[in-house]
Amino acid sequence: MQDLLEALRAIVGVDGVLVEANDLATYERGWRYGVGKAAAAVKPRTPREVADVLAACTARGVRVQPMGANTGLVGASNPDASGTMVVLSLERLARTIEVEPLDGVALVDAGVTLSALNEALAAHGLVFPIDLGADPQLGGMIATNTGGSRLVRYGDVRAHLLGLEVALADGTLVSRLTRLRKDNTGLDLKQLFVGTSGLFGVITRAVVRVVPRPRQRVATLACAASGEAVLQLLATLQAEVGELLSAYEAVSREALAAVLRHGVYERNPFQGEPPAYAVLIELSTALLPAVLDLDAALHAALGAHLEGPHADGIEDVLVGRGEDFWHLRHQVSESLREEGAVVGLDLSVPRSRMAAFTEDVRARLAARFPGVRVADFGHWGDGGTHLNLVHDKALGGDDPAAFKRALQDFVYEVCVREYGGSYSAEHGVGPHNLAAYTRYTPETARAVCRVLRATLDPSQSLGSFDLG
Amino acid sequence: MQDLLEALRAIVGVDGVLVEANDLATYERGWRYGVGKAAAAVKPRTPREVADVLAACTARGVRVQPMGANTGLVGASNPDASGTMVVLSLERLARTIEVEPLDGVALVDAGVTLSALNEALAAHGLVFPIDLGADPQLGGMIATNTGGSRLVRYGDVRAHLLGLEVALADGTLVSRLTRLRKDNTGLDLKQLFVGTSGLFGVITRAVVRVVPRPRQRVATLACAASGEAVLQLLATLQAEVGELLSAYEAVSREALAAVLRHGVYERNPFQGEPPAYAVLIELSTALLPAVLDLDAALHAALGAHLEGPHADGIEDVLVGRGEDFWHLRHQVSESLREEGAVVGLDLSVPRSRMAAFTEDVRARLAARFPGVRVADFGHWGDGGTHLNLVHDKALGGDDPAAFKRALQDFVYEVCVREYGGSYSAEHGVGPHNLAAYTRYTPETARAVCRVLRATLDPSQSLGSFDLG
Repeated sequence: MQDLLEALRAIVGVDGVLVEANDLATYERGWRYGVGKAAAAVKPRTPREVADVLAACTARGVRVQPMGANTGLVGASNPDASGTMVVLSLERLARTIEVEPLDGVALVDAGVTLSALNEALAAHGLVFPIDLGADPQLGGMIATNTGGSRLVRYGDVRAHLLGLEVALADGTLVSRLTRLRKDNTGLDLKQLFVGTSGLFGVITRAVVRVVPRPRQRVATLACAASGEAVLQLLATLQAEVGELLSAYEAVSREALAAVLRHGVYERNPFQGEPPAYAVLIELSTALLPAVLDLDAALHAALGAHLEGPHADGIEDVLVGRGEDFWHLRHQVSESLREEGAVVGLDLSVPRSRMAAFTEDVRARLAARFPGVRVADFGHWGDGGTHLNLVHDKALGGDDPAAFKRALQDFVYEVCVREYGGSYSAEHGVGPHNLAAYTRYTPETARAVCRVLRATLDPSQSLGSFDLG
Repeated sequence: MQDLLEALRAIVGVDGVLVEANDLATYERGWRYGVGKAAAAVKPRTPREVADVLAACTARGVRVQPMGANTGLVGASNPDASGTMVVLSLERLARTIEVEPLDGVALVDAGVTLSALNEALAAHGLVFPIDLGADPQLGGMIATNTGGSRLVRYGDVRAHLLGLEVALADGTLVSRLTRLRKDNTGLDLKQLFVGTSGLFGVITRAVVRVVPRPRQRVATLACAASGEAVLQLLATLQAEVGELLSAYEAVSREALAAVLRHGVYERNPFQGEPPAYAVLIELSTALLPAVLDLDAALHAALGAHLEGPHADGIEDVLVGRGEDFWHLRHQVSESLREEGAVVGLDLSVPRSRMAAFTEDVRARLAARFPGVRVADFGHWGDGGTHLNLVHDKALGGDDPAAFKRALQDFVYEVCVREYGGSYSAEHGVGPHNLAAYTRYTPETARAVCRVLRATLDPSQSLGSFDLG
């Protein structure tokens, strides 16, 4: 290890290698979950340095944990408990943001944060339209294929990736930083590095597609009497203003009640008890008001619904500032934690089955695990749902971890096997959900992962887990 | 072979196996290019039959050529000249089209044609928005990752693919027909089968994302004085009405002149000589006219450009019926063939470099290959250009194939090496452009293709070429 540290210092400079326990602490612990132990942390400044760091570690049989902004929720960016891994932080590889307005693309270093990219894009009237609660780095976003609240409009990170540069474990730099929108020349190699948690290589730079920044944005909150009513309204909006719909988020009564009990907000927007679901509807457009009156478009669409056969499902439509509604929505996770133990699940089902799935899980959990409440909120526009299971901490008994696993496994089985859903809608795969990965991933996919790993990282230097 | 034919008849029925020369002819010849020789053609009706056909052939060491509608332009669906391959035609695997309006998806058999899918979708106000001159099958579209004229708005086939079922060479059916828009669970296996010409497996079914069918569509033809002017207008339209722009096609003076000489059209829309580029601008929207006046939006955007600093580049804006302009555009290829030998290139460059690239190639070809004219037309909105090289057939001398290769190689080098472009923007990879594939594909990508082939088709049963 001493020899390795010397080699690493020679590559990235003395200030780029950390070994003191104090310095290492932030690299060992995840943003919300997870903790491990690192032998060192190293902070390269260029793609070439990343590759050289990997070569130095691999040559000495030392495993490497790549780390972006460390905001992931599945433990994929933290070292394991062995204390033998080197954390490779991309935080200093964050100098390049080249915006090409006519091409509608940006070339970025992997360590550039989402907020930094969007700040640079704003000057050109552009935006990278992946909307998240956290502020991750671009490399981490690609390795996780992050989703977020506006996927219904713009798609995922994968859909915005044009070019990629990756450092392989042996120090090879594979660079294809193309700005092409059309390039059909066989296997699209970059797809292997999207959503695979950095296990096949460390992303160093990327070319992403960006879009015109909305010049108008309106939001409202509809009070729906049931999950079915949430879907009926979605169908109307898709038909009437589908191409303008940039978010469709529904927060359940249970989650709303928690925010009203524990959150920070100016006033309770609801008359009496919160509705079964409060639906945050957002429309946006880069068109100017002279071309399209967005407010009128929203009202016309809502009016069409309220004159249609499913009007009864909508109890109220609240007028107010969009940011207040988003503020309410963003306080759910924090508020729930005040209510007891929370098992946060990141699920998806086909969006037409959201209501049936949620009701079914709620009923079966009540029967099987009395005292466990479902406080769901989610991206109903794309079928993603954060199904939070809230319970009194005492319910977990002597082994709260086992209780948590039992709850997870119960819901995963219903979601994946019965509703064609996913146990990880947008958080990706890591040690925290590896058991589910192993259970639900077809053998062909795992066999392909094994040969890819054997080809791209034969000494298994990268990461603390495996997809094979 | 006799034993294999018996086995195939047992799987697909007697009428599903063709061996007569007359019957085989249409399976041996490509839509526009290519010809080979088949031992037999077999037409399975279900995914299971496809898998069983593959197993039967692989077990006997007989190679298989999958074929969709046979409209490809790179020879990837035709058997080689050996006369030993079995053509596996998907034409009878075309019964299922399940539309799920609320999910915005359709489940289709691989042999369903684009037109049949869109006919089924029209009843729901939906469309699969890949716009092509041909009418391919869905499986072939995925294996080619087709592009087309409306990619600027909707993206490629890959961007619309949610679920996939593939039959592997050994008869394994790998089925993941998910309707999920969010599903981040490691390697996205289906990506391996997109654009790889069926060499890793035969696509049997797919779930594709569909979009609201436009309820308004307007088109106009702008006469641009130069390629630079085409790009300046694109920049304005992107900024003003970017989210409505569904096609931006530019046809060069040389190509226009050929249409005016040989095409079928009602009247010459141009005063005197055609412009340097005629630009077909199409806006479309699913919004109703009461919400958005599309005609007004187009005129406002054009007006903004004609009052701006680059107004001089636009010599005229022609009013007329959109279909007439598209008709003109669609006659370019046929008309050019009346002018002599045509080397049709399917290139792309970053769209900001379209003008510079085209002018550069035109000048350098004139110097290096006198008598060769560039008659380009292309999807300037996404950087795709069909750079047609037209010349007197006599120029090819004794070896016209060698002359064609010399022209191709010359332009490919400029496009790929100097402009960061692609030698195959939307037609994919096949025997016809395999030399370019070999020249320009990085070793890492080819190494990955080799191990994927070894894993998914170890006996190399599929197709007449290789990506490794």
